[in-house]
Amino acid sequence: MGQDIFDFETVALCEERDCIRIIDQTLLPGNVVIEELHTAEQVWNAIYLLKVRGAPAIGVTAAMAMYLLVNRVPIPEGTGSKQAYELLRGEFDRQKAYLASSRPTAVNLFWALDRMDRAFTACGEGQYCSAEEIKDCLRREAAAIRDEDIEVCRKIGEHGLALLKPGDGILTHCNAGRLATIRYGTATAPIYLGQERGYGFHVYADETRPLLQGARLTAFELQAAGVDVTLLCDNMAASLMRAGKIQAVLVGCDRVAANGDAANKIGTSAVAAVAAYYHVPFYVCAPTSTIDSNARTGKDIVIEHRRPEEVTEMWYKERMAPEGVKVYNPAFDVTDHELITGIITENGVLKP
Amino acid sequence: MGQDIFDFETVALCEERDCIRIIDQTLLPGNVVIEELHTAEQVWNAIYLLKVRGAPAIGVTAAMAMYLLVNRVPIPEGTGSKQAYELLRGEFDRQKAYLASSRPTAVNLFWALDRMDRAFTACGEGQYCSAEEIKDCLRREAAAIRDEDIEVCRKIGEHGLALLKPGDGILTHCNAGRLATIRYGTATAPIYLGQERGYGFHVYADETRPLLQGARLTAFELQAAGVDVTLLCDNMAASLMRAGKIQAVLVGCDRVAANGDAANKIGTSAVAAVAAYYHVPFYVCAPTSTIDSNARTGKDIVIEHRRPEEVTEMWYKERMAPEGVKVYNPAFDVTDHELITGIITENGVLKP
Repeated sequence: MGQDIFDFETVALCEERDCIRIIDQTLLPGNVVIEELHTAEQVWNAIYLLKVRGAPAIGVTAAMAMYLLVNRVPIPEGTGSKQAYELLRGEFDRQKAYLASSRPTAVNLFWALDRMDRAFTACGEGQYCSAEEIKDCLRREAAAIRDEDIEVCRKIGEHGLALLKPGDGILTHCNAGRLATIRYGTATAPIYLGQERGYGFHVYADETRPLLQGARLTAFELQAAGVDVTLLCDNMAASLMRAGKIQAVLVGCDRVAANGDAANKIGTSAVAAVAAYYHVPFYVCAPTSTIDSNARTGKDIVIEHRRPEEVTEMWYKERMAPEGVKVYNPAFDVTDHELITGIITENGVLKP
Repeated sequence: MGQDIFDFETVALCEERDCIRIIDQTLLPGNVVIEELHTAEQVWNAIYLLKVRGAPAIGVTAAMAMYLLVNRVPIPEGTGSKQAYELLRGEFDRQKAYLASSRPTAVNLFWALDRMDRAFTACGEGQYCSAEEIKDCLRREAAAIRDEDIEVCRKIGEHGLALLKPGDGILTHCNAGRLATIRYGTATAPIYLGQERGYGFHVYADETRPLLQGARLTAFELQAAGVDVTLLCDNMAASLMRAGKIQAVLVGCDRVAANGDAANKIGTSAVAAVAAYYHVPFYVCAPTSTIDSNARTGKDIVIEHRRPEEVTEMWYKERMAPEGVKVYNPAFDVTDHELITGIITENGVLKP
């Protein structure tokens, strides 16, 4: 391990080899395996099996795949513009429907596929572009989705970093890191920018039961980037705060309601309540795209409940609870806006 | 499984078979195995390997063992009182030193061994009792330690139950249950008494990382007793409180400082801060013997830190964190007295 693995972005288009390269996140932290996705089936599986995860990373993967798959369609010499357009459009629609079925709850997947669709439509509008023009248009749109993700994360990093001091102890929960995005992550963006600028942060990563994204992914990616990171169980953060070791909490966010209530990985609201008690500022890092004005408050956000085995059977192997016991296993919780010191977006810090 | 296993107490003297019977807690929740401890080595191992755990249960086991081991010493016919006394005293001292080495940090182990020692001394005071009198005296003292534990827990149960209403949702953390004591537990005592009286409580058990005492032991013993119990990860309690499912928190306690700060299993103070935010009463169930007037505040209580592997390697098998990552793993935390609604003792409810 070392800094090297992050010379490689979480998801990258590799045109020479006509593929997408990803870090297989299901093998982390034990094995760092870069996988090449060549076929539509490989992309579908990578998303379905969570080899790629995190809304932005999934969206970028799907967009890049749409470009690669359409780009491969051979246009026989002498084909007219209309027929060429229809050949490409046919392939686009088929593959879009196929990839959309890989993870039906991932809003960002549909958002990215629809954006590629609109780019295709806009390119052909009113006339039939050449096949080359269409392919180039899809290529530019996929690149734009990727570049915008990097830029949004970088700006969140700048706004967040302005709230921190060198040497601060920072607690984070779950993985809103570069592995969920392309380069900086959201909650980790201020940490990575601080790292580049010698801030010397001490970062504490909640392991994040039941699926351990903090232990497996956040601790891994921060360590790989040379950040001073310490892993802890979720129930240990209060003890750190009581000891004065935490100057700020940075977490990601799945959805923000109009009143500032924020839905994020289960356990986030507990960290917020504990931070409030110990007067530690609690920041939610959220691209403005996660603000959902259709949800008036957190009560309007439906929480997914997942299968009991995630709790009772630990990560891989042995069952650690009595057979037949009831289990409460919500995937997310809602943090009251009054517990949130600020929502850090690419446009600045909002106070709920 | 079923109610049957609790016809048997956590630790019981079985005079017909000249042994102590325990439930091997290292095999829970998968296997319910009643083990007979016949020799001093078996008792030592049971304590060392945590087959018996929980301060009261360890103390009672050691006291019963001292009686059994001394009771077995043969006194040849015609032996004078002084020689008989010395024969028994020699065996007592040898076995006391041996058993004391089984778990050097268990204060209650020494407390129980010393109490047996004082009983021995008091019995022989000023004169040499007969061997029979000494053996009987040790038998009565071990029985008294056991009976007092049951009585203290039962009284905590009565005082606690008076604070609860039928149908209440109750959250508990770690295992301060009957498996840690002889019959009622401390934090679970109000729950078991309520169960006997048809209160219909809904109990929620934090799994309690890293060692999962909540999942393995609390969920097990409550389920075995027919209590409606639901298991959750430690970070999910806030979500339950936000949903209005919890009317009271009941936890055990390792040590209470003079100002009411309470040290208990790691994570307890986080539950307390979250409960305060959601206005849920937070009760610490503690025999008066855990009140340590030598500790002025929680700051005077030294917290044990344990090995990183408990966090990184999960319960049994596969490592779930990057190699070499730093780990924060305190075994206990301190809950500020201002977060504690009441300390439930055998003598009534104290307000910190």
